[in-house]
Amino acid sequence: MAKHQVLVGGQWRDADSDAWFQASDPAAGDVLPDHYPVSRWSDCEEALNAAVDAFRVMQTMPREQISLFLEAFADRLEGCSEEICEMAHRETALPVPTRLAGGELPRTCGQLRQAAEACRTSSWAQPTIDTATNIRSCLAGMGPVAVFGPNNFPLAFGSISGGDFAAAIAAGNPVIAKANSMHPGTTRILAREAKLAADETGMPPAIVQMVYRIDHADGERLARDPRLAAIGYTGARSAGLKLKGAADAVGKPIYLELSSVNPTIILPGALAERASDIASEFTGSCLMGTGQFCTNPGLVILCRGPQMDSFVESLVTQFEAAPVGTLFSRSGQEGLAAAVQTLVAAGAEVLCGGQPGGGEGFSYGNTLLRVTAEHFLAAPEALQTEAFGNASLLVIADSVDQAIDVVSHIEGNLTGCIYSDTQGGDDVAYDRMAPVLRQKVGRLLNDKMPTGVAVSPAMNHGGPFPATGHPSVTAVGMPGAVIRFGMLQCYDNVRPERLPDLLRDENPTRVWRSVDGVWTQAPVPPKSTE
Amino acid sequence: MAKHQVLVGGQWRDADSDAWFQASDPAAGDVLPDHYPVSRWSDCEEALNAAVDAFRVMQTMPREQISLFLEAFADRLEGCSEEICEMAHRETALPVPTRLAGGELPRTCGQLRQAAEACRTSSWAQPTIDTATNIRSCLAGMGPVAVFGPNNFPLAFGSISGGDFAAAIAAGNPVIAKANSMHPGTTRILAREAKLAADETGMPPAIVQMVYRIDHADGERLARDPRLAAIGYTGARSAGLKLKGAADAVGKPIYLELSSVNPTIILPGALAERASDIASEFTGSCLMGTGQFCTNPGLVILCRGPQMDSFVESLVTQFEAAPVGTLFSRSGQEGLAAAVQTLVAAGAEVLCGGQPGGGEGFSYGNTLLRVTAEHFLAAPEALQTEAFGNASLLVIADSVDQAIDVVSHIEGNLTGCIYSDTQGGDDVAYDRMAPVLRQKVGRLLNDKMPTGVAVSPAMNHGGPFPATGHPSVTAVGMPGAVIRFGMLQCYDNVRPERLPDLLRDENPTRVWRSVDGVWTQAPVPPKSTE
Repeated sequence: MAKHQVLVGGQWRDADSDAWFQASDPAAGDVLPDHYPVSRWSDCEEALNAAVDAFRVMQTMPREQISLFLEAFADRLEGCSEEICEMAHRETALPVPTRLAGGELPRTCGQLRQAAEACRTSSWAQPTIDTATNIRSCLAGMGPVAVFGPNNFPLAFGSISGGDFAAAIAAGNPVIAKANSMHPGTTRILAREAKLAADETGMPPAIVQMVYRIDHADGERLARDPRLAAIGYTGARSAGLKLKGAADAVGKPIYLELSSVNPTIILPGALAERASDIASEFTGSCLMGTGQFCTNPGLVILCRGPQMDSFVESLVTQFEAAPVGTLFSRSGQEGLAAAVQTLVAAGAEVLCGGQPGGGEGFSYGNTLLRVTAEHFLAAPEALQTEAFGNASLLVIADSVDQAIDVVSHIEGNLTGCIYSDTQGGDDVAYDRMAPVLRQKVGRLLNDKMPTGVAVSPAMNHGGPFPATGHPSVTAVGMPGAVIRFGMLQCYDNVRPERLPDLLRDENPTRVWRSVDGVWTQAPVPPKSTE
Repeated sequence: MAKHQVLVGGQWRDADSDAWFQASDPAAGDVLPDHYPVSRWSDCEEALNAAVDAFRVMQTMPREQISLFLEAFADRLEGCSEEICEMAHRETALPVPTRLAGGELPRTCGQLRQAAEACRTSSWAQPTIDTATNIRSCLAGMGPVAVFGPNNFPLAFGSISGGDFAAAIAAGNPVIAKANSMHPGTTRILAREAKLAADETGMPPAIVQMVYRIDHADGERLARDPRLAAIGYTGARSAGLKLKGAADAVGKPIYLELSSVNPTIILPGALAERASDIASEFTGSCLMGTGQFCTNPGLVILCRGPQMDSFVESLVTQFEAAPVGTLFSRSGQEGLAAAVQTLVAAGAEVLCGGQPGGGEGFSYGNTLLRVTAEHFLAAPEALQTEAFGNASLLVIADSVDQAIDVVSHIEGNLTGCIYSDTQGGDDVAYDRMAPVLRQKVGRLLNDKMPTGVAVSPAMNHGGPFPATGHPSVTAVGMPGAVIRFGMLQCYDNVRPERLPDLLRDENPTRVWRSVDGVWTQAPVPPKSTE
């Protein structure tokens, strides 16, 4: 039977493979007809060698040219938007108009263009010049990067189109992409367009390479391989931690985005003031995309009080009334069921949902669970199990003090949110709670659900472990995301004509640089002849 | 027998300890009389709890106050310079006038003051404001930091006075210091002064804490403990990798500086032009401080040619003529002997030295070894064994091509240096070799030995693994070193009065911020009311 080809060394060719897999049509609950190869190590071996060659070429390439590639790629994606979105819809069941064509594709193209701009202006490279010692440094490309994309954003986090890909390329590194097994057809189209854009703009053939699947042992072997400089991984915690173990053992940077329950605290005054608005916001945020967001509000902390019971009742009513969406896969449905079971075993009570089915194809009822803060504090680890999908756990505290205690037991998360009233009634509680929550999350929100992740230079889509692998970097937002894929290169007494142009006195392209502690776009003035 | 006290929770008190150790007087080759405790876990436990409390206080403390502490500490160190240098000399045999009082103490105080300035101006925090989305972010303190200092810089890299210490404090974190066992008396004085400076400037009692020694299992337990936010470690590779393993397993940032042979390539034209100058520079750099520098030129690559034999002869003559310095310890002497043995077993030939003794106390003859590039390429790992001390390995290549091949087999290093002639004769060779070397090292030098590490904002005292744990950060130079100990904190829709002052529109202290992609010290202008 015919299997799709992999993109290795600038060529679409048959994989070295006996095994194959098929993707699913989640809405039909059925497999799709196409066969995709599971590559043997030899495909990785060839990709690594080709990537090393590509990196060598990219090191001396004008930044402008790499920017043009990213922009050409974005243009091409827009040019075949219909084909991409149709395939992505078939493989993920995500809606085309409201999500794929209406949101994710434009976001993906915008992100590629922002990465192009970061590359062009070197805004990510943080050039630093110390004229007194004539020591100069900047970030620069580090070598081939492997990207493993998640199932939930086939385009915006896709291994050959998303943030990690764009960032790695903008830093001057070739990418070896591992397609997510849930949307190989989408990834194939993206890879096809990336390859065409690369050819058009004169990139080395192996700037983008793609395999569909490798077994776990080869994944770890890839992570350990000295030809690979870094890894970007977004996905399940268990597989991510295995890759991390392999990379850590050889001191290789790996950027992970693993899991997050995104604690959302609704203070009593906010509930008294606008319970109904908050209920709608929460329901919308939690059920959108069948809740399959890394920033889904999966843990809501409430304080007992007059409005609480009716608020919870209204959430249940809304969850029951809302249509049940389709999940990405059978394993997603099973994973959600298992997580709900873990939460129940740890003492949570199912308020609604809690059963598979109810929607088209792979699905699980819109689920709310409830547990007392006392119970939570007795089993904080189990009760932070991520239920990836349309489910959320309400934690009911007896007091603000107890709610703060709950927050202090929360592990690292991408986001944390506090709703408070607008008249100052919650301010004392906010001021006590915010510092505790602040240290646990990458992004702190006020009065806003966390599911929107703007591609902003000020964004932190990151946070302390286990949400990510390092609390000081972001996976979304340029130039921040690019910084992750650079190594710091210092030049000490290096002759002027041998410096990279970023660090020469002249600064013809007016890059922002820190010169003797001052940020400036100006050239370094000639030394006075004292 | 009386043991010295540890500094825990703001108090000097007896350690919870049965075991003890003594430091050595390296010049006498003998143990010093004082007894220092090996702490049990309970001392760490108490220190961790106290550090968590101290961090809570530091989070709301004005930056200015933390800066004043660092400056008061620097002033105090200068005030008892004589006592510190005398003790450090006794424990390390490093000379007082030319090294400790004349170099390392001023460097240490300067570094503390640069960290104070980075803290005061928030130059490390990279505040970023996106006015379109009202998303704002900056780096901020992450929590208690443990610092493990090396044996070779008792002050400038000392666990309670050096770069990691200063950087962690400047980022707003309390420090738990583990004294290096080779200079506990020096560390005790430094801790005493740090504690007094902390009291004087109103710091929380546990901003600085110090234990002398803990066993390896407790070190790893400390690394894993959730109360600890990060670790700074400079020292032996084996112990560092154990700590790294423990920290990695729980996703905790650990900054390591492990080992480096600092490849130094002397191109044929440079040798033809100025062999005698280069020989003197190299000998000075390699034997200074008995070669016990992390940036010691331990691997020299030469090309066969008319000048080469006489150059090597002159190095041997100079190495033999130079006085043999004292090493830090018996284990240092044994480690150097073992490394030389490893190099010889891998095919290197001893040109001079290669035997213990010859100097005062712990010592080992000034040692030069030689190996052909062919041999090197057959056993590149063994022939990159770091011989920490007054020893260096010459690698003799048949051609520039072969020399480049050698460079391509070098693992991650702190520095790499190329000497070339001044008339352009080596330019072709340089242009081919530099890109290969560039990716292997944190700092690339021209025509200059690597042993001087300026405390410059443009410095990279770092490099790819195994030189350090991450290729994108520096351990020396402010504000770069501070960045390592911050977490990225994003604020999304957070009410203005709840923002940290760094991120408010007003910017009264004129911090450098990136506002909508422009670096500026200006306030954010009020929004026009469209």
